[in-house]
Amino acid sequence: MKKKENSQHRSDPHVGEMKNMYLLGLDVGTTGCKSVIFTPDGEVISSAYGEYRLYHRRPGWSELDPKEVWNTTKETIRRSINKGKIDPKQISALSTSVLGDAFIPVDDAGNPLYWSMTTVDARAAEQTRWWEENFGADRIYRITGQPLTSSMPIYPLPKIQWLREHESEVYRKTAMFLCWEDYVNMKLCGKPVIDFSVASRTMMFDIAKKEWSREILETAELDENLLPETQPAGTVIGQLDSDAAKETGLSEETFVVTGGHDQACGALGAGIVESGPAMDATGTVECIGVILKTLSLTERARLQGFAVHHYVIEDRYFLFGFNPTSGVILRWFRDNFAEKEREEAKKKNIDVYDLLMSLAAESPLGAKELFFLPYFEGSGTPTFNRKARGVFLGLTLAHGKNEVLRSMLEGLSYELRRNIEAIEKHGTEITEIRAIGGGARSAFWSQLKADITGKPLVVPNVTEAAALGAAILAGIGAGIYENAEEALRGVYKEKSRFSPQAENMKRYNRYYDVYMRIYNPLVRIFDDLSELTKET
Amino acid sequence: MKKKENSQHRSDPHVGEMKNMYLLGLDVGTTGCKSVIFTPDGEVISSAYGEYRLYHRRPGWSELDPKEVWNTTKETIRRSINKGKIDPKQISALSTSVLGDAFIPVDDAGNPLYWSMTTVDARAAEQTRWWEENFGADRIYRITGQPLTSSMPIYPLPKIQWLREHESEVYRKTAMFLCWEDYVNMKLCGKPVIDFSVASRTMMFDIAKKEWSREILETAELDENLLPETQPAGTVIGQLDSDAAKETGLSEETFVVTGGHDQACGALGAGIVESGPAMDATGTVECIGVILKTLSLTERARLQGFAVHHYVIEDRYFLFGFNPTSGVILRWFRDNFAEKEREEAKKKNIDVYDLLMSLAAESPLGAKELFFLPYFEGSGTPTFNRKARGVFLGLTLAHGKNEVLRSMLEGLSYELRRNIEAIEKHGTEITEIRAIGGGARSAFWSQLKADITGKPLVVPNVTEAAALGAAILAGIGAGIYENAEEALRGVYKEKSRFSPQAENMKRYNRYYDVYMRIYNPLVRIFDDLSELTKET
Repeated sequence: MKKKENSQHRSDPHVGEMKNMYLLGLDVGTTGCKSVIFTPDGEVISSAYGEYRLYHRRPGWSELDPKEVWNTTKETIRRSINKGKIDPKQISALSTSVLGDAFIPVDDAGNPLYWSMTTVDARAAEQTRWWEENFGADRIYRITGQPLTSSMPIYPLPKIQWLREHESEVYRKTAMFLCWEDYVNMKLCGKPVIDFSVASRTMMFDIAKKEWSREILETAELDENLLPETQPAGTVIGQLDSDAAKETGLSEETFVVTGGHDQACGALGAGIVESGPAMDATGTVECIGVILKTLSLTERARLQGFAVHHYVIEDRYFLFGFNPTSGVILRWFRDNFAEKEREEAKKKNIDVYDLLMSLAAESPLGAKELFFLPYFEGSGTPTFNRKARGVFLGLTLAHGKNEVLRSMLEGLSYELRRNIEAIEKHGTEITEIRAIGGGARSAFWSQLKADITGKPLVVPNVTEAAALGAAILAGIGAGIYENAEEALRGVYKEKSRFSPQAENMKRYNRYYDVYMRIYNPLVRIFDDLSELTKET
Repeated sequence: MKKKENSQHRSDPHVGEMKNMYLLGLDVGTTGCKSVIFTPDGEVISSAYGEYRLYHRRPGWSELDPKEVWNTTKETIRRSINKGKIDPKQISALSTSVLGDAFIPVDDAGNPLYWSMTTVDARAAEQTRWWEENFGADRIYRITGQPLTSSMPIYPLPKIQWLREHESEVYRKTAMFLCWEDYVNMKLCGKPVIDFSVASRTMMFDIAKKEWSREILETAELDENLLPETQPAGTVIGQLDSDAAKETGLSEETFVVTGGHDQACGALGAGIVESGPAMDATGTVECIGVILKTLSLTERARLQGFAVHHYVIEDRYFLFGFNPTSGVILRWFRDNFAEKEREEAKKKNIDVYDLLMSLAAESPLGAKELFFLPYFEGSGTPTFNRKARGVFLGLTLAHGKNEVLRSMLEGLSYELRRNIEAIEKHGTEITEIRAIGGGARSAFWSQLKADITGKPLVVPNVTEAAALGAAILAGIGAGIYENAEEALRGVYKEKSRFSPQAENMKRYNRYYDVYMRIYNPLVRIFDDLSELTKET
């Protein structure tokens, strides 16, 4: 497509034709699925959301029911088409953005044989430790780009080994182990193809060679035939099966295109195609991702917990850090200590988070020297310590709810800066922050992040960045866009921009210095707490 | 008085006569004054309370208006007599328990010349530092028993020097510097006599020699004539002036007897006459006091902040530690984070603190490994660090309001244990805890303190321990009791007793071990916070 950049040319018959061509971005997440239909300009035609359950059959287990997820996904696609009141034939192509790590063992006929363990399912600690001790976490990192630690047994490979040991009947019957991207692709067009970005998370993919790692599979005694075909993101796999078309309401003419890992799709939706801008996706969890100039896998980055994936553009690599408890801490506060604000928000018909943000804004900068460490489920990158815990430090009688809230937002933002600095030390300069996710809705927090990091923060005009990223990949596959850069010229728009305020930056530099001195002396205490928790 | 121990002898005419003799205990505190009329058995006949204002004319200043305090005191005495519907002649004697540290410069006629600076008035930091640097805090401790640090300029002597430097006209006119005990005594019977316990707090009293310290007064270039006569507690000074009798509603026949420092009076009211039981007075502040077997002033105790006073029994010494923010932290939580509970308590017509205690009781022991350091205004004994700040450490998403509340009570109780252990290391074994003040009202907290300290905790059957202690001193002065021991045989009664539960004790030992490891690594961070506060 040669997209016209000037909207005055909209009457051009070619563009008129284009206007009736749509792209569907599917976003299969941990607790629900979104189906969003976009114009090639990135405007949302319609959007639908369906929820499914996350099961915890045993402590430490966390699973999805594959049938339930697929049924919900089908229905969600159908609802988005109906809501859009469009002819399904108008959807040129679709791609899928998926949660990482989760996988499904399927039989010869493609039927699921077991639950789908998600990232936080912790059952494979022993198998993960085995790799640490016998293969080496450094070696795994050099091949796959994934930091390995037995305290976070998140990857599919050790979980597959767990299945072999504990569910041998399931393992014996398994014809393939699929991630959610390839599973959905198989359901839609019969071909279980996975893209490089999702494959990167399996702990079995050689990211430099762009193929399943022989070395790892041999060590695991795992047949490569059990794994799906890999392709770059944005590759056409086929067109809809007639059965799948009936089930979803889609047309058999629609192309199925490889999508990608949700963080990478989100970054693409936020307009990131090269090294420079950092994605800051703030939801329950916060992810900070950048495109690397060159593939670089250092020991320091591994120990800091930074994962390196294929990006959803070929030959570009995506490094990302995370804070496992970001927005979820605000929810924790809302649920436990903001009864009054919940009631007030209800009465005034406003969002309770907007109310909490306005309280935080009433506190002076620095929250009267109250500091907050947001490690409610261990720390993410770059301290990467599962034993870390949340801390309020510096309390006096002068601190009220406003200061407590502000200290929480400041602490979360200091962690963002800490990640940015670690990434920059890794060799990738960050020019600006692209904020997506629920956190980007708050102007106060966005300005805080700009002031604390010293980086301009841009909120793109997009609500569902991961679905948009997937739709862009679909469009590339279908030939609507020549490449991602071309797509984004039309699609990417800034909604708002927050520049660091010099005076605030200066003051926050001083607070950040102190913040950075808090963690180290606490490490030994976190060890003590962890011991105590084990004993009790 | 030969008090009958058997109540069956109540018809004895001598006892009948005794029953119509009363003792008045006056308690002049920081924010209000209590007047309580007791029978010699310690039963309350009537009680009145009057409030006065604490003025903060400048940041760091904290003052009482002497005229306002005296007017309120007069009225409060009168109201207690009226409420009791007794003939004032029935009041054999009265004594006064007072806040320490506060003093009043008076002219020749006994009229106040200036405001009365209270303990926390911080203006004399420079003068206090002068003593530290030129005289030595260790030397001050060896003479007076008072730990001196310029970060806590609490004592009268440096404040008198501040007056000399900054209010020279006031200083020039001053005939005497009186504490509140001697001021009230002067008002009642014309003689400004101070007891040894209150004199101990002035930083001018030689506690071994029981006289004003020549050495210190000479260094300060302060004339001893500016200071009042000193006497042991429980010494008759005189009888009511006719003017004072008219002003207060008291009788001219009533004896005025030296009382004492409110903490020592409280301990006496809690039945403490010898080494063994520890007073634990939990109000806004928490004070832990014991009678020493022998006068012992070690360097360690000084650095830990333990003050040694004369007790209100001659030749007995009272050592006491403190936690500057105890109950006040619960009030802080109530005011900032318990809107829902405040409303609920109002609806159900119950005390909100009772409700908060019941929530804390719902948390498991150890608050799910959440720890709390209550240093909201610096730490008291034995860490004694003005720069310390409050900390919650160990937060996870599993912690709710119940755990936060329990962690606060546990943290406060760990501090009690820390003080008990420091006092025991100082050579005084503690046999049981006598709990008084608002904190003693909670059975849950009392049991927690017993479980955490491993000491039985007794709540005496007394609501106004300091006023009762003063009344006992009045009775000793008036000859109604031969001595404190005899008085307490009739007066002291247990209301409830909490024994440490073996299983809980064992578990808390483990938690306490971890608690004790938290403070040290934080000291450097507290220094950082203090620097930051200074800068901003």
